[in-house]
Amino acid sequence: MFEQLGLIGCGLMGGSFALALKKAGLVKRVVGYSKSPSTTERARQMGVIDVEAPSALLAVSGADLVLLAVPVAATEATFKAIRHLVTPNTLIMDVGSTKREVIDSARRVLRDQVGVFVPAHPITGKELAGVEHADAELYRGRQVILTPIERTLTAQLEKAQQVWTALGCHVRQMSPEAHDAAYAAVSHLPHLIAFALMNSIKGQADGDTYLSLAGPGFRDFTRIAASDPSIWRDILISNREELIAQSRHFQRALHTMETAIAAGNPDALEALIDAASSSRSHWRMTAIKSHG
Amino acid sequence: MFEQLGLIGCGLMGGSFALALKKAGLVKRVVGYSKSPSTTERARQMGVIDVEAPSALLAVSGADLVLLAVPVAATEATFKAIRHLVTPNTLIMDVGSTKREVIDSARRVLRDQVGVFVPAHPITGKELAGVEHADAELYRGRQVILTPIERTLTAQLEKAQQVWTALGCHVRQMSPEAHDAAYAAVSHLPHLIAFALMNSIKGQADGDTYLSLAGPGFRDFTRIAASDPSIWRDILISNREELIAQSRHFQRALHTMETAIAAGNPDALEALIDAASSSRSHWRMTAIKSHG
Repeated sequence: MFEQLGLIGCGLMGGSFALALKKAGLVKRVVGYSKSPSTTERARQMGVIDVEAPSALLAVSGADLVLLAVPVAATEATFKAIRHLVTPNTLIMDVGSTKREVIDSARRVLRDQVGVFVPAHPITGKELAGVEHADAELYRGRQVILTPIERTLTAQLEKAQQVWTALGCHVRQMSPEAHDAAYAAVSHLPHLIAFALMNSIKGQADGDTYLSLAGPGFRDFTRIAASDPSIWRDILISNREELIAQSRHFQRALHTMETAIAAGNPDALEALIDAASSSRSHWRMTAIKSHG
Repeated sequence: MFEQLGLIGCGLMGGSFALALKKAGLVKRVVGYSKSPSTTERARQMGVIDVEAPSALLAVSGADLVLLAVPVAATEATFKAIRHLVTPNTLIMDVGSTKREVIDSARRVLRDQVGVFVPAHPITGKELAGVEHADAELYRGRQVILTPIERTLTAQLEKAQQVWTALGCHVRQMSPEAHDAAYAAVSHLPHLIAFALMNSIKGQADGDTYLSLAGPGFRDFTRIAASDPSIWRDILISNREELIAQSRHFQRALHTMETAIAAGNPDALEALIDAASSSRSHWRMTAIKSHG
């Protein structure tokens, strides 16, 4: 049980965390701060937070749990804003989709206190951003990846595991490097591709007609293209080395298939599709059953 | 009301059409043929067809409605197998995802009788192939694209429109060329990309670990990668010119985004993502409400 959650960033991810924590009875009060005062006010009106803080620092004042739920490029400025009120007993977490850059920021700003920060990435989301779409069930059944470093304090790491587990999450640990490589492959590159495909079609003279003809396959394939531009701008740039490397891998695989298609080689093409189809058919999303 | 549907190909698409036609009370009997006798037998046991035909020709014997529901590369051989029993009153349709090659086959084989063939492409499907997954509701609310040619008979075209409309579909007409360009963009290329992405990840040493970390965004993005290899081998090769052209468009759009990412240019990247996100947010799948 936490006395106070200091929530910095009252959007979809932060707001859903506050609601989930309250629903699980794990926090006495939530003090929230958002860059936009109207968002903070809205969060209070919705009962996502109990008290509006006029600054990130004041949200952290008195908090034993702090969640940074801001775009990854805003992480360093946020650490700077709050560092004077971080105590050895505080647990700070983030929800960022990239981990190496976030951890570098934490090292630079928190210095000797970097051990209280447990980098976290919950594998969930919605294409609808903003506190209006906050949902106490957003995290339930999902994976949460923790990427502690050598200086991370054991007590904080254990508390972090307990919180996410209590919210119904499946917690995994890995290095920040392994995390960033994996999510470049299975999340950041798919987003980049989906954005590029939408722009490719819209950029053609008949693009709107093409879009009017699209069906359920296109709907699901491009769902992630509707994601929030400022959040994803930060993620793609933050993880650019791994992302570009994954894009090169992908373009080689695409080229291999195009070669079979251009040559009209049905056997080679079927073998390539069969490998992909079989991989996808056997894939199951790691998830735990809902307790609800 | 049709006397007899001659169904050639008793898989997901053909089986679902037979079930939908029966449910709507639009056909007295369904005579079915599949290349695999066990599929034909299964279709009869399931009540998808009433009578098993030992050949495509015998399925057409006595049929006033014929549906070709075979992989597009098998279309020409199927026309050859049935042409001797095609009458001026028969309505023949297909369900192929590409139209130019199918129409070329029809011209070559049916010759003077090509007017009884109304090329059709229902925009629906499942990743689960086979008659076991046939579903009377598969077509309801979906678009069906008809691509008549100059020699298509008006009577057959009207009957085709009536049948699909009676099954709850939204019927549109366009040229085979326009159809193939549009579906290269919104269906064939997304499938090709999804296949290539799966192969790209699986081909890496840590690919299985990466896949175990993937979440709901990846699940939806790659759903179409589980599609049937032989069906999609045919589609991608059949429409290869338009597909390769669309892939070039896409790769240029991808390169534009990569350039902004590599340069660490957040403003340029955000503008590109914003365009994509806005296009996708405003897109709505053309569909009509279910009457069910």
